[in-house]
Amino acid sequence: MKTYLDCIPCFFKQGLDAARIITQDKVIQKKILDEIAMVVPEFSLNSTPPEMGRIIHKIVRKFTHSSDPYKKIKDKYNKAALKLYPELKKKVRKSKDPLLTAIKIAIAGNVIDFGVNEVRKKINLGKELKNTLEQNFAILDYDKLKNCLEKTKEILYLGDNTGEIVFDRILIEELPQKVIYVVRDKPIINDVTIEDALFCRIDKVAKVISSGCDAPGTILRYCSKEFLNYYTKTKLIISKGQGNYETLSEEKRPIFFLLKAKCPVIARNLGCRVGDIILKTQGSGYTEINPST
Amino acid sequence: MKTYLDCIPCFFKQGLDAARIITQDKVIQKKILDEIAMVVPEFSLNSTPPEMGRIIHKIVRKFTHSSDPYKKIKDKYNKAALKLYPELKKKVRKSKDPLLTAIKIAIAGNVIDFGVNEVRKKINLGKELKNTLEQNFAILDYDKLKNCLEKTKEILYLGDNTGEIVFDRILIEELPQKVIYVVRDKPIINDVTIEDALFCRIDKVAKVISSGCDAPGTILRYCSKEFLNYYTKTKLIISKGQGNYETLSEEKRPIFFLLKAKCPVIARNLGCRVGDIILKTQGSGYTEINPST
Repeated sequence: MKTYLDCIPCFFKQGLDAARIITQDKVIQKKILDEIAMVVPEFSLNSTPPEMGRIIHKIVRKFTHSSDPYKKIKDKYNKAALKLYPELKKKVRKSKDPLLTAIKIAIAGNVIDFGVNEVRKKINLGKELKNTLEQNFAILDYDKLKNCLEKTKEILYLGDNTGEIVFDRILIEELPQKVIYVVRDKPIINDVTIEDALFCRIDKVAKVISSGCDAPGTILRYCSKEFLNYYTKTKLIISKGQGNYETLSEEKRPIFFLLKAKCPVIARNLGCRVGDIILKTQGSGYTEINPST
Repeated sequence: MKTYLDCIPCFFKQGLDAARIITQDKVIQKKILDEIAMVVPEFSLNSTPPEMGRIIHKIVRKFTHSSDPYKKIKDKYNKAALKLYPELKKKVRKSKDPLLTAIKIAIAGNVIDFGVNEVRKKINLGKELKNTLEQNFAILDYDKLKNCLEKTKEILYLGDNTGEIVFDRILIEELPQKVIYVVRDKPIINDVTIEDALFCRIDKVAKVISSGCDAPGTILRYCSKEFLNYYTKTKLIISKGQGNYETLSEEKRPIFFLLKAKCPVIARNLGCRVGDIILKTQGSGYTEINPST
């Protein structure tokens, strides 16, 4: 997905929000916004929003001298999500369609996103979970997913945010296939890193690898050879969240996007409303994998 | 009021919104955002937001080759408000406190603000009027205003937006004093100009003058001698809307601000909530005029 002009005001909001986590110094905060302003004229709208996200958060880290501004928030939501784990498992066990329930749970976790939400916003995980479980999908390529699942032994699962990763674990545990769980290479916003994956014990249910990319999405030209090897060969890719959707929506790989549409730009791109839940594959991706798997 | 860091994302939103009125060309729209980005690092937070508004809309006019992008919208809301005029008069006539009702009506008109609202937003004037009339003031320096009104023969009334100007007329007609009605010097957003004042027949109830300033507020160093002469001598100033509040809130003149708090930054500055209605004077302004008038 390319960058929309409406993303530009949001870049400044994101930078300001991130700066405020680390410093109350308005001079530094302004300096960060000024630096973002200097990048905007050079930034092509043909790039995806996470390319700018990557630049913004580099600026924030540089001027706040903090390598991981969201560390506390990430730990908080990892812990909060882990507390919910037994309840989540129970919901899946009681469900008539455990796979679909686990998918909904994984999507519910996608609300823990501080690229979209302001950091001061408190996210009520229990409430979000309940609402999402009661919600109908705006796009639901479930049959296509089940069809693909039947024909593949290995799944590449692109993680998104901390906290959310526990909700991903619920889904991974419903998948009999081998799962390669992909995390960001370095701390960026509240996105998952290796550290979070280990803390949330994803390594017990999946092989955890880094994408090699330090953006809040999966920008292929920054990805590692190891990741690209899985990416080009795996017959089924599950992609969580907005950042991965933004960077991969135009790719011709068998990707299933699981996300909650959290901003008007994404919603417009998907043809849905803000707040909608989505399980979507690109037509071409599906066609490509159908005969060969 | 100084500029808050939260105003910066909003500057880009405003520029984009204004650009979209005139052109669908995304290259021009991006160029406008790039130009705003180039101004931001030079812009001091000690300036008021309308100083930046003035620059933004200059950029928009330059790159869209349009001297008055909001012309159609302005005409539309002037006409819509004029249609409501008989009904507004009736409401005042039936009221137990015609002055307070007229003040509320004047504030209700302050929703017609495309510096805050997106242009595609349709404003339902009838509904807004009804809601505002039912609303309690968050700040109400009414006794102070009445006290001042008793002691002055001339009022300087700083207009704000088109359409809203008809609602101002309702209030002006309840004031027995001579009123000098001040408009912006040139078209800026949907703010009132001489042309709008004449169209809405404000000249029948007040002496209409330009402030000399082409910003969406009253920046004194850009104002004309004629305006400044009234401004420094008049014993009671009524200031409508956010832009005038932003530029004059720290002035030590006998100003009564009438506005609806339409954005979180203004609300924070006033200590109220977004949507609240305000009739407020600065303590010092009041003290200053009390003994001498």
